[in-house]
Amino acid sequence: MTKTNPGNFFEDFTIGQALAHPTPRTLVAGDQALYTALYGNRFACASSAEFARAIGYAGWPMDDLLVFHVVFGKTVPDISLNAVANLGYADGRFGVPVYPGDTLRTQSTVIGLKENSDKKTGVVYVRSTGLNQRDEMVLDYARWVMVRKRDANAPAPETVVPDLPKAVAPQALVLPALNLARYDDRLAGSPHRFEDYQVGERIDHVDGMTVEEAEHMLATRHFQNTAKVHFNQHAEKDGRFQKRIVYGGHVISLARALSFNGLANAFKIVAINAGRHVAPVFAGDTVYAWTEVLEAHALPGRADLGALRLRTVATKDQPCAQFPFKEGEGTHKAVVLDFDYTVLMPGKG
Amino acid sequence: MTKTNPGNFFEDFTIGQALAHPTPRTLVAGDQALYTALYGNRFACASSAEFARAIGYAGWPMDDLLVFHVVFGKTVPDISLNAVANLGYADGRFGVPVYPGDTLRTQSTVIGLKENSDKKTGVVYVRSTGLNQRDEMVLDYARWVMVRKRDANAPAPETVVPDLPKAVAPQALVLPALNLARYDDRLAGSPHRFEDYQVGERIDHVDGMTVEEAEHMLATRHFQNTAKVHFNQHAEKDGRFQKRIVYGGHVISLARALSFNGLANAFKIVAINAGRHVAPVFAGDTVYAWTEVLEAHALPGRADLGALRLRTVATKDQPCAQFPFKEGEGTHKAVVLDFDYTVLMPGKG
Amino acid sequence: MTKTNPGNFFEDFTIGQALAHPTPRTLVAGDQALYTALYGNRFACASSAEFARAIGYAGWPMDDLLVFHVVFGKTVPDISLNAVANLGYADGRFGVPVYPGDTLRTQSTVIGLKENSDKKTGVVYVRSTGLNQRDEMVLDYARWVMVRKRDANAPAPETVVPDLPKAVAPQALVLPALNLARYDDRLAGSPHRFEDYQVGERIDHVDGMTVEEAEHMLATRHFQNTAKVHFNQHAEKDGRFQKRIVYGGHVISLARALSFNGLANAFKIVAINAGRHVAPVFAGDTVYAWTEVLEAHALPGRADLGALRLRTVATKDQPCAQFPFKEGEGTHKAVVLDFDYTVLMPGKG
Repeated sequence: MTKTNPGNFFEDFTIGQALAHPTPRTLVAGDQALYTALYGNRFACASSAEFARAIGYAGWPMDDLLVFHVVFGKTVPDISLNAVANLGYADGRFGVPVYPGDTLRTQSTVIGLKENSDKKTGVVYVRSTGLNQRDEMVLDYARWVMVRKRDANAPAPETVVPDLPKAVAPQALVLPALNLARYDDRLAGSPHRFEDYQVGERIDHVDGMTVEEAEHMLATRHFQNTAKVHFNQHAEKDGRFQKRIVYGGHVISLARALSFNGLANAFKIVAINAGRHVAPVFAGDTVYAWTEVLEAHALPGRADLGALRLRTVATKDQPCAQFPFKEGEGTHKAVVLDFDYTVLMPGKG
Repeated sequence: MTKTNPGNFFEDFTIGQALAHPTPRTLVAGDQALYTALYGNRFACASSAEFARAIGYAGWPMDDLLVFHVVFGKTVPDISLNAVANLGYADGRFGVPVYPGDTLRTQSTVIGLKENSDKKTGVVYVRSTGLNQRDEMVLDYARWVMVRKRDANAPAPETVVPDLPKAVAPQALVLPALNLARYDDRLAGSPHRFEDYQVGERIDHVDGMTVEEAEHMLATRHFQNTAKVHFNQHAEKDGRFQKRIVYGGHVISLARALSFNGLANAFKIVAINAGRHVAPVFAGDTVYAWTEVLEAHALPGRADLGALRLRTVATKDQPCAQFPFKEGEGTHKAVVLDFDYTVLMPGKG
Repeated sequence: MTKTNPGNFFEDFTIGQALAHPTPRTLVAGDQALYTALYGNRFACASSAEFARAIGYAGWPMDDLLVFHVVFGKTVPDISLNAVANLGYADGRFGVPVYPGDTLRTQSTVIGLKENSDKKTGVVYVRSTGLNQRDEMVLDYARWVMVRKRDANAPAPETVVPDLPKAVAPQALVLPALNLARYDDRLAGSPHRFEDYQVGERIDHVDGMTVEEAEHMLATRHFQNTAKVHFNQHAEKDGRFQKRIVYGGHVISLARALSFNGLANAFKIVAINAGRHVAPVFAGDTVYAWTEVLEAHALPGRADLGALRLRTVATKDQPCAQFPFKEGEGTHKAVVLDFDYTVLMPGKG
């Protein structure tokens, strides 16, 4: 029996199967420092422990996407080592904050299976849950991924496609116990609060960030994501693109960091509603982003806080003043990411 | 009203104007770790918490230039987003030490304005102060920067050029409460103390360090410095140099790290007297440095401690055995930095 | 007298000479975070502080190779600044665990000298000991290095070649006080325990990792290793390879991280028996690795724990399914590292 991990193939998954992913990870303040160096993040709570405590956090909360990437990375050896494509995310909710010293692990359940007509691949739907050392949920989300079959002749499983919401309902959000009375716009970097954003409003985040090989590899290893296509130029020179592919989550984090310019008060991500990596990003590409406000939800009894559902679109080598997205029948050729998520923003009180 | 930050233009500044810069930043021990990885710093107090405590620090002091870069980075969105050039620094004094867990913010006051004769740009002089969470000064300095006008027809302000000292006077230095009796030369890496350095002495720091794109971008994002020219190759390919420009402070930190070889006992920077980024540095350049001792100040009642005013000159692709600086009428073409600062060094007691 | 460090030349070393290396270094949790980003390390104890505490560690132990690199780096300015080649390691034993906040320093003793017949160089053998702030041994090892003579006419010292063991004897290992009863295979990532590995067994670690200039320089500065060949492209363009050479220890850490795939339960390195950097690695190379089990030692009275002596071979641009090592009379041309070390692995109890 081989001692190396061959990963699971499509026929290895069964509905209801539980996977306890290995290598829990302790996150410390230094991870936050490194995350800042990788993305230039400036959202107030991840930048300043004092700011976070002033609005009611018990400590310095780790950046939400750092938590996402670490929880996601844990699933790769079991779920997507033999994946052809990461197809989508849905129904992602962040739970309790992660503080320095917390240790995260991830467990998943297979919630859907659908063999493709070519019989060479199939789609696996999993629900993954990140937990801290007290077994509290820090992140729970569904994703689906196209996985190769080991054997094209293996019988197809019964097709099960889970019913996933288009977006996390406002009442399903886990709201942190915060008191926004002490939220300081001046320190946070913007006077624009929840009520200032209109559904349909579009914001060009202006700046661009060029990606280097060393950066995306540092980030992806930082998240302990082991997907081969990000790291091995010797193999990828003969692959589909002749080069390493940037981890899609790296692009999400770049877009989120760029979105500070226009959304500085979107201090916390509470939900990931949907996400699609429209096209691959490679080292040398410059990532730009723009955002559309999809929904604005006042939260019952919380005049100090509102939830904005946002779509952030990232492009490569294409500034976003014209909000590139659709082009003829399809997606604009410069678009690399279509990310639908919900943020908290202080209200006017 | 746009929600993105257009930055301030020359006509937006007025004498006496106060700017409270956003996004305070918590520094932790992991920031020091990352700073070491970026520059290879070996000065004893930033390398060893034990060494620092042995000479009287209450904790592990953050590297002075890490503090400088973070305090400086905060000012960029308000002061220099529309800058053409960072012209100089003066009268910089470091205050209380910054320890892991401290949170820094920066506030600035406009102290000078001078429109240029082309009416397209003007020089803005600001005094910026970095403060910790107890409102104690950690760094105070003046800089001036050439900023574009939004509208060439905007009226010129009255010219005010502040009176800035050529160098911080020894009696104006903020001396940390230390007891150098336990300063260990062997651990620090050099037998040469304050009295061993002569005014006029020149030291070639011998080594060179090549700059990579991923490194200067990691560093500059680490400092949350958002100046566009450092990050966006897609835009810069059509810019003045067809490539990204390395943040000038990155070069200062490289030169300081190189200066360990010859100045190992210069354990603390207490003042930045002047600084000039003579020429841009790009990825691929190799930075070398040499230093001249400009002044040596015994400190009243402190036989254990002296202050050396130093000029460190950095070059690119040019070793410094010949101390390159002047060439004919001008500056040697390899020179990229002329940095005038004051360090503390243990005395012979 | 020059104030810069010219390093020691062969004739500067004498048998029995003691060297107390400068610049002690404090390691913090953030160093572990950065180490993870550099190598993608997933071994359970360095990934999870909870896992480490569950098996009896008093805190979160720093990765063994991070400790090795920092202890090694300290010796460079005194031992190998004028080295031509790092020839080998032997008799390396890890001592007490290093926890966040510990400060490491290194001292060395010259234990052997042998001038080469060309009279231009000689081999220096040193025993180096890394100590924490309580003077407890964290690592003790011998290495030998070929060092240039300053003056070919300097007289040759008496030849002394130390008697070094081929491998650290099991009874000489420093075993941490752990209780493996709570070692969780599922969290660690592998069901294979000590008894499952057979002497002579060979494991292909499958994956490859491409090295970038920014990465190996970040790592090598992180370890405060000052060897010039890693950093200065301006000088190296005229050197032996026309490019910077990757620090050999970077390759050791890459190989160790790759070896997780097949050796996930090798949770701790306890000895470095031998090591040879067979060929240089450069940026752009992709490192692969495979391992042979050389010896398996049950430990007296420790049914919960065994020691495996391993040889890990790293290659560049050569997958290891065929276990490349010997080729005709010599070593396979793709091999870059031959590393002989001993790990602890939980037993079946």
